[in-house]
Amino acid sequence: MAEHCYKHKVQYYETDQMGMVHHSNYIRWFEEARVDYLDAIGLPYKQMEEEGIGSPVLEMHCQYKSKVTFGETVTIRVRMKSYTGLRFSVVYEVIGEDGKLRCTGESGHCFMTMAGRPLSIKKAKPEWHELLLQHAGEE
Amino acid sequence: MAEHCYKHKVQYYETDQMGMVHHSNYIRWFEEARVDYLDAIGLPYKQMEEEGIGSPVLEMHCQYKSKVTFGETVTIRVRMKSYTGLRFSVVYEVIGEDGKLRCTGESGHCFMTMAGRPLSIKKAKPEWHELLLQHAGEE
Amino acid sequence: MAEHCYKHKVQYYETDQMGMVHHSNYIRWFEEARVDYLDAIGLPYKQMEEEGIGSPVLEMHCQYKSKVTFGETVTIRVRMKSYTGLRFSVVYEVIGEDGKLRCTGESGHCFMTMAGRPLSIKKAKPEWHELLLQHAGEE
Amino acid sequence: MAEHCYKHKVQYYETDQMGMVHHSNYIRWFEEARVDYLDAIGLPYKQMEEEGIGSPVLEMHCQYKSKVTFGETVTIRVRMKSYTGLRFSVVYEVIGEDGKLRCTGESGHCFMTMAGRPLSIKKAKPEWHELLLQHAGEE
Repeated sequence: MAEHCYKHKVQYYETDQMGMVHHSNYIRWFEEARVDYLDAIGLPYKQMEEEGIGSPVLEMHCQYKSKVTFGETVTIRVRMKSYTGLRFSVVYEVIGEDGKLRCTGESGHCFMTMAGRPLSIKKAKPEWHELLLQHAGEE
Repeated sequence: MAEHCYKHKVQYYETDQMGMVHHSNYIRWFEEARVDYLDAIGLPYKQMEEEGIGSPVLEMHCQYKSKVTFGETVTIRVRMKSYTGLRFSVVYEVIGEDGKLRCTGESGHCFMTMAGRPLSIKKAKPEWHELLLQHAGEE
Repeated sequence: MAEHCYKHKVQYYETDQMGMVHHSNYIRWFEEARVDYLDAIGLPYKQMEEEGIGSPVLEMHCQYKSKVTFGETVTIRVRMKSYTGLRFSVVYEVIGEDGKLRCTGESGHCFMTMAGRPLSIKKAKPEWHELLLQHAGEE
Repeated sequence: MAEHCYKHKVQYYETDQMGMVHHSNYIRWFEEARVDYLDAIGLPYKQMEEEGIGSPVLEMHCQYKSKVTFGETVTIRVRMKSYTGLRFSVVYEVIGEDGKLRCTGESGHCFMTMAGRPLSIKKAKPEWHELLLQHAGEE
């Protein structure tokens, strides 16, 4: 899938006293969008965990462009940027109802056993490896 | 212990666009205070979980009296109200820097195995049972 | 409206290390459902604030029945229980995908100016008063 | 001040079902540490806002090194990396009780009026400008 769109309605509890969304919540929306994307390509995060595989966040980057306010429904465009067999990265764009860019982000992830050991998906789950390869880097 | 005091400094991310602490955060402060109280009476929550026992929340009640704002350090007075061998309840008072009451609360809890089965602490951990009995209901 | 249904998909960041939704998040879902309900009856919370009227939470009560887990979509049934001209209360039921009750709740609210003074909606906004009267207490 | 240390005790509500702190919370701890640092150098964030000046986040970067768990008290080392008169950046290191690095981060900020217009601190608040200059880039 070249790109996946996820919608999030901004909640009151996500605002802060500046009258806009607190910046930590974008990180949570990225997770919502990433989980929805993985569902859409046939790699549900819930199932990954049930099979004993986690996918922790190694790195996170956000650039905040303009504020998001209570009641808005933002669209988060999400795409897998790269996949190496061991790691993958995902990029995000948060778009307001007016079509303007509010925030961009990128996250890096690896795979791990529930005991915390790094895992090669290529060896452990060849069918997931194929799925990830197929979707990574599409434009 | 008749009563235990726990201090919490109000963070920016706990405010909402009304310019005060979002009401859901008091529930989290109650947890901070309860965990600190259980540590203080010799029943650390972390150790409980390591021994395979959880203590889920069955009930929560809050009454909001006046607003709490960013930067304030509130004191949370916490006390075990009752303990029956199967369940316990904890009461909370959130006090502002001006000495005025901001919020009162009460939570009800049981004990469970990590698999989710109810547990009698009296049978499973007689020494904890004694501790809980000793502290419950003191005024 | 006798009853309003709101859906919430459970996010990973809403879980805690017991492997279920942290109990503080239900309070946030109640807010999501309440805002959605007020939108549906023609009293958008955003507009209320733009007209200088807030509606703080005076009281909150939850009873947790059974756990909610990551990935589930819960339905929150929401209904205005009472309205007095000065205050209103809202009741909530969180229902799992299996149709079983997970949590019930009730919240109490008043109306205030943005400066924090209590407000009689009946005097300040007679047309909202009519709306609230019409929806309160319907079964 | 070359470097400032801030301590945070990890709360239960900050964990997720992987049994560690959810990655979005580090962003919140950075804010706690930043606010504490600004207090320490004589530039309280609360006072800034009372004088009509906000300091939104423009950019955020985190690298997660190893997990943090419930009950740990982490130390966050915080330092102003740069200040240009218009913008400043802050760097963070989260250190576990064992002295090991758990996470590093960097945030970029500007100054704004409460109406959202960019502000030159140099012109608007020369005494704050001096303070910021004095502390930026110290090693």
